[in-house]
Amino acid sequence: MTDYYQHYSDENRIAEVVDALALMTETERPFTRLVFSAEYNQARAWLKSQFEDTGLECRIDGGGNLIGVRRSTYQASHPQKVIIGSHIDTVAAGGRFDGIAGIIAGLECVHYLNHNHIDLPFDLEIIDFLGEELNVWGTSCIGSRYMAGLLTDDLLQRVDADGRLLGLEIEKLGGTGQSPSSSRDDADTIMACFELHIEQSDQLEKGAVDIGIVTNITGISRYSITVEGAAGHSGTTRMHERQDALVAAGEITALVQDLATGIAKRDNQHFVATIGRIEVFPNGAAVVPGEVRMILDLRASNNHSKDAFIQRLNAGFSQISKKRSCGVAMEKIVSAPVAKMDERLIHQLSCSADHLKLSHMKLASGAGHDMAHLSRIAPVAMVFIPCRAGLSHCPEEFTTPQAIARGSAVITRSVIDLAG
Amino acid sequence: MTDYYQHYSDENRIAEVVDALALMTETERPFTRLVFSAEYNQARAWLKSQFEDTGLECRIDGGGNLIGVRRSTYQASHPQKVIIGSHIDTVAAGGRFDGIAGIIAGLECVHYLNHNHIDLPFDLEIIDFLGEELNVWGTSCIGSRYMAGLLTDDLLQRVDADGRLLGLEIEKLGGTGQSPSSSRDDADTIMACFELHIEQSDQLEKGAVDIGIVTNITGISRYSITVEGAAGHSGTTRMHERQDALVAAGEITALVQDLATGIAKRDNQHFVATIGRIEVFPNGAAVVPGEVRMILDLRASNNHSKDAFIQRLNAGFSQISKKRSCGVAMEKIVSAPVAKMDERLIHQLSCSADHLKLSHMKLASGAGHDMAHLSRIAPVAMVFIPCRAGLSHCPEEFTTPQAIARGSAVITRSVIDLAG
Repeated sequence: MTDYYQHYSDENRIAEVVDALALMTETERPFTRLVFSAEYNQARAWLKSQFEDTGLECRIDGGGNLIGVRRSTYQASHPQKVIIGSHIDTVAAGGRFDGIAGIIAGLECVHYLNHNHIDLPFDLEIIDFLGEELNVWGTSCIGSRYMAGLLTDDLLQRVDADGRLLGLEIEKLGGTGQSPSSSRDDADTIMACFELHIEQSDQLEKGAVDIGIVTNITGISRYSITVEGAAGHSGTTRMHERQDALVAAGEITALVQDLATGIAKRDNQHFVATIGRIEVFPNGAAVVPGEVRMILDLRASNNHSKDAFIQRLNAGFSQISKKRSCGVAMEKIVSAPVAKMDERLIHQLSCSADHLKLSHMKLASGAGHDMAHLSRIAPVAMVFIPCRAGLSHCPEEFTTPQAIARGSAVITRSVIDLAG
Repeated sequence: MTDYYQHYSDENRIAEVVDALALMTETERPFTRLVFSAEYNQARAWLKSQFEDTGLECRIDGGGNLIGVRRSTYQASHPQKVIIGSHIDTVAAGGRFDGIAGIIAGLECVHYLNHNHIDLPFDLEIIDFLGEELNVWGTSCIGSRYMAGLLTDDLLQRVDADGRLLGLEIEKLGGTGQSPSSSRDDADTIMACFELHIEQSDQLEKGAVDIGIVTNITGISRYSITVEGAAGHSGTTRMHERQDALVAAGEITALVQDLATGIAKRDNQHFVATIGRIEVFPNGAAVVPGEVRMILDLRASNNHSKDAFIQRLNAGFSQISKKRSCGVAMEKIVSAPVAKMDERLIHQLSCSADHLKLSHMKLASGAGHDMAHLSRIAPVAMVFIPCRAGLSHCPEEFTTPQAIARGSAVITRSVIDLAG
């Protein structure tokens, strides 16, 4: 017996795309396809050929986004558009589904429309947004920021440790490398943007629910924390005279964990704070660390919790700084507000899921997504599908072709419903 | 008026060598000349030409050491030897004098002997020992270990993160890349080994003493510490469910600092413990750290202090492991016992300093040196000179040509005295 959603997507075809992209990875560190890397360029070229095989018209926009258009044959001077998009870059040693699932949803929708000879009254754009994951320039969502008019000169002029200028890397991929003067100039013609994504948490799995319909995407703030101590020889610098920056940084990582755990519990809501990236100078076994740079990633559903956290963290910095004779400085790098999904599209996704006889629930996204930026210029909505144990951003990340097929079907059904 | 020591060495010539080698550095990160790097190879070639210009016969031994020999014209079937040696590699962002000063002492001795047409009754070898500083393979003193027959297959077969095999790197520099079956086969003909080095602490500077004569070199133990947690998405992994390896590692760095400070104070002696090197996986700002690897560098003047430290550290690991839901494992990488300098040579250096009207004191070395390994096969001795504020292994490391000239003169005088 065929389930109803299976009319809309093909699990074997989905598995083939997942497997093909999984091979385009740093071989020593699966699954790693960092934006602008050789593996990324290879995957981009492969995806473009996939787009073209389904008859999409391909172009790269100024922000380096790969856009495949399925043109409507309806004659309109200002054709309306519907977007289905996600990304194919990964974090280092990430997974095979984060981003990929959303690109597959776009391809599955096009296959369905083609197979059934459906001519929509609007253009359908499948978009591979450039570099969604946090990169070495300390930013994320390069392509969707560009499209929303939010990719600033300050970001474009950042240079990484290897001397690579962010703007120039975008230019090499076919973008302009310039800051957009405004958001996409046809933004008023975008009727809807959809993204399918793995949940990256375990609410759907625990509840045995097929489909998550996102209500909002959490606000994300990132700060750089710099600890200044004094480097010295590990054999000759006496213990009581040390200004070991790594010792102070170590106390900071524990403080962040403990403060955030307390606030999440007290406020009974989604509140997470992470120090995931650390650089130690000079990082030699025989040298007392002189300097440490870290990035603090903070996600809060409201400003009250965030402000309380930052206030206590600063108080903690003063104590650690004094105790360890190190300077501690914190600076905000990026800050994105909470992004709300469109109520009408949320309703439409619910109807589609019902129509397909799939169970569904509403939930908030703790992770950031390109749709957070697109929400500034157009109605957006997101569909989540279960992933095993909620694991993500790690090689163990896993979901099934079946789950991707279900989520894709919900989006395809909604696109068709938008045609009225 | 010329001080007496100035007959033995030339401060201008010394400054020229310091300046020339300072230019052979990673340009972005002075002063960095890591063993096997392009900068290191450049400095090796330059030093070889310096050796040849003073008439030394050059060769590379099986351990990749650069040896310049000033042959005695005395006819002997088994000529005796005196060695003056140190190293020209640096730690990352190290200084201009650590190692360099000792190579200069060798060159200055040869210049003096040549200028005064002194024919010694033994061969004089100036040795640039390969890779004295701790390297990415987790070992140090490659060249002197080889000469002492201590460079094991286990060490030679280590591979770094870039896939470089230690043995093959040595082979590329002209060594065999093989483990020596025994110590240098003419070890019984080595009368004395001398090394000049900056003190890397501030006893000489504080006491305004010209010359330090080393009594022994501290024992060094290094351990790898691995913390196993669970990677996860920074936005979606709830705080109370985390197994953040960096948080556990942070508590370990603070514990190491605090335990070592307490033991050094209680036992009133030189006891230092450092976590200078840390690697975090995957080290992305949006990922909860899943694994951390660190190196613990431990230097103790006696086993009692060391045993007490390790015992308390293990107890601390258990607590941290439980509190942070992470596994913690520690493994010994290397361990070198305390090395005693030769009593007769210590006496001879004292006499030379007196002869040159230089003030001197005896002291222990908290840092490791090639002479610790050479002490296993021959009589060795070390001369320390003051360095500013005791700073070392950092770009601020500083001593004067005058201080190097004084230390070199003491060694030259002792070499001549050995000729009887």
